[in-house]
Amino acid sequence: MGVYMMLSAVDLARRIEDGSLTPAGAVALCAEAITARDADLGAFTVVDIDRAHTQAERDAVALAASPLRGLPVGIKDIMDTVDFATEYNSPIYRGHRPVADASVVTMVRRVGGIVLGKTVTTEFAYMQPAHTRNPHNREHAPGGSSSGSAAAVGAGMLPVALGTQTGGSTIRPAAFCGVAGFKPSYKIVPTVGVKCFSWSLDTIGIFAATVPDVAYATAAITGRDLRVDRTTLAAPRIALVRTHSWDKAEPVMQRAIETTARAAAAAGASVTEHDTVPFLEEAEAAHGVISRYEAFRALAFEYDNHRDVLGPMVRAALDEGAGVTAEAYDAARRRAKRARQAFADFMAGADVILTPSAPGPAPRGLASTGLPAFNRLWTLLGAPCVNVPGLSDAAGMPLGLQVVGRFSRDHAALEASAFIERITRKL
Amino acid sequence: MGVYMMLSAVDLARRIEDGSLTPAGAVALCAEAITARDADLGAFTVVDIDRAHTQAERDAVALAASPLRGLPVGIKDIMDTVDFATEYNSPIYRGHRPVADASVVTMVRRVGGIVLGKTVTTEFAYMQPAHTRNPHNREHAPGGSSSGSAAAVGAGMLPVALGTQTGGSTIRPAAFCGVAGFKPSYKIVPTVGVKCFSWSLDTIGIFAATVPDVAYATAAITGRDLRVDRTTLAAPRIALVRTHSWDKAEPVMQRAIETTARAAAAAGASVTEHDTVPFLEEAEAAHGVISRYEAFRALAFEYDNHRDVLGPMVRAALDEGAGVTAEAYDAARRRAKRARQAFADFMAGADVILTPSAPGPAPRGLASTGLPAFNRLWTLLGAPCVNVPGLSDAAGMPLGLQVVGRFSRDHAALEASAFIERITRKL
Repeated sequence: MGVYMMLSAVDLARRIEDGSLTPAGAVALCAEAITARDADLGAFTVVDIDRAHTQAERDAVALAASPLRGLPVGIKDIMDTVDFATEYNSPIYRGHRPVADASVVTMVRRVGGIVLGKTVTTEFAYMQPAHTRNPHNREHAPGGSSSGSAAAVGAGMLPVALGTQTGGSTIRPAAFCGVAGFKPSYKIVPTVGVKCFSWSLDTIGIFAATVPDVAYATAAITGRDLRVDRTTLAAPRIALVRTHSWDKAEPVMQRAIETTARAAAAAGASVTEHDTVPFLEEAEAAHGVISRYEAFRALAFEYDNHRDVLGPMVRAALDEGAGVTAEAYDAARRRAKRARQAFADFMAGADVILTPSAPGPAPRGLASTGLPAFNRLWTLLGAPCVNVPGLSDAAGMPLGLQVVGRFSRDHAALEASAFIERITRKL
Repeated sequence: MGVYMMLSAVDLARRIEDGSLTPAGAVALCAEAITARDADLGAFTVVDIDRAHTQAERDAVALAASPLRGLPVGIKDIMDTVDFATEYNSPIYRGHRPVADASVVTMVRRVGGIVLGKTVTTEFAYMQPAHTRNPHNREHAPGGSSSGSAAAVGAGMLPVALGTQTGGSTIRPAAFCGVAGFKPSYKIVPTVGVKCFSWSLDTIGIFAATVPDVAYATAAITGRDLRVDRTTLAAPRIALVRTHSWDKAEPVMQRAIETTARAAAAAGASVTEHDTVPFLEEAEAAHGVISRYEAFRALAFEYDNHRDVLGPMVRAALDEGAGVTAEAYDAARRRAKRARQAFADFMAGADVILTPSAPGPAPRGLASTGLPAFNRLWTLLGAPCVNVPGLSDAAGMPLGLQVVGRFSRDHAALEASAFIERITRKL
């Protein structure tokens, strides 16, 4: 496994439940790891261990009885927090202190999560790389835009962290950092108080060590029946979908997918193979049209008033967005709607799709957050997506498998992901 | 017509275009009306005439050439503005100055609108009445939650104002104040930077004197082909839909709808009559489930940290929201999705639905913003809705006719509304 021992949310929660660990003890575990590792990795913009510790001690009993049991949580710095600066990695917002927490931040606090700090985002959660390093090899990219959340969980500095996904910003960094990442169905978790890039695509993402861990955390935060750590995992119907991006996947990733599918079939899963899904993939182009049109409006204030301090990638995306007509946008939205119908029809025959989370392991160097070629389509469809961690290449860099579920069938997606994760442990 | 002469956006824009009026002159018209009338009506939370005048003079040439031609615009105080306090009518936000404009505010400025001030909203755009008065009779309610925007346009203090609608917050105050109100199709205008109550329902609304005026303003702000002031209006296919709320409509409103439908038929429209729409109206209950579930999360920070200063109606709605389960919410969302399909099927046979905007004229007294019985269903469906002004009861209080269009066919909805508005002038 990885360079660092990760912190399992399920395991810590059980130990707090049975009294062998306190919430303050969980904070101390994170604090120790952060002190030892974050200078190297740069996953956080800010942490407040003292406040977290004080809260954990003061509310120890209530926290231990809460759904999240006082677990420390990291918040991507694209989400508003009243008690930490919220900067969206933009100089426009240097030192900005919002007047209210984002909805999902309050939801974390409501169920007994302790906000330990803010994690690094790329600028406005777009593609310009930030300074965070990959915990498996600091010469490699952590992926983006939820770079800090993925790296913090991957380095054992946090059991749970929140991110977002507009293209591939949860699944890809989870894959690169070797952690479980979960993008729930569109709109199930509110993005209120999260800096908007594209209101039709922005989705909250959750990071944890393994699939049962990420399911546990999401169940607690949303109040939904999503846990898979107490379940006998049923063998799913898996559609191995190569998609038109298959050629972009490195041989090591292609082999990982195919080997996993064979092993899943041997373990009782039904597996069908598809090079493409009819009427579906041609919709992927709609993602770029919708996201750019909306970003030009979502970031209208910044573009019109602070264009000179926007990074080159954000500025270029907004420049493009300025040129997208309402007609082109409407046509892209219609195309996406038809694709969602085609996807629902296809998924009548499968519980989940198995496909790469990224073309391969994290690229060397920090010049790119990696390609979203295997992510945009599923985000456009609003489908639940899971990065299943566990495999790695010969150099020890993680290889992420992506499981895509039916819209609004998030539990089934997580259960199939846990099944596949267990398969990979035996490979 | 009303007590006050309204300011027509189309007329002012034409005069600025041909040079017979300047943007500064338009600001002066508004300033004069505000000075004379707003002490009585209470439509604004704040105005800045001096700044507007300075901008109008400084940028006179560019503004006159812009799509909105320097017209003064009022912004409902539920929308963030950097240069005006933004208080959402809540003591929690007294004096709050956001760090960025809401997207739609920047969009107004982009096309040459001058933001003259903020208009009164009810608390968090929910149902607790504010202090604004109806410009047709100050003893009557202006409707809510976009009370100030509707009253400001109705009193001739502004040619254009922005509001929002989650239940009936644009159509109802427009009806009560005798102005054109337009709720575009869901998601066409971004709500980024607008205080959220329900992310599945909140929609931007636009107010202006007449249907061509509101179409003109919306066309300019959105860059969409929506104008109907230069068009020969085709006779629409109208479905008079009484809905299950018909018994809640006062006789004067029932007669107004039926008389208008007959006159439209005489003028060449095809009119069919329906007491109800199969599979559609039973979905209305989903509106309450969705809005309360989402409000409990959208306003999570305020509920958890400032519950003691929430007004009784908002607090009661959030208390209810706390009790809505994820299962009930998901069921309501599925029901809404099926209703949208039933609506699309029904609308294959009609261009628009004609139905009341409200049960009757504005109620006497300021104790209520009025019933949303004729509004919630269409908001849930995401359909474009127009309040067509022009009719009034024996006491001179406005009676609003509601035109509901097919999803994403906003131009057709506005064109049919303009046709119907012209019909009412001859009644």
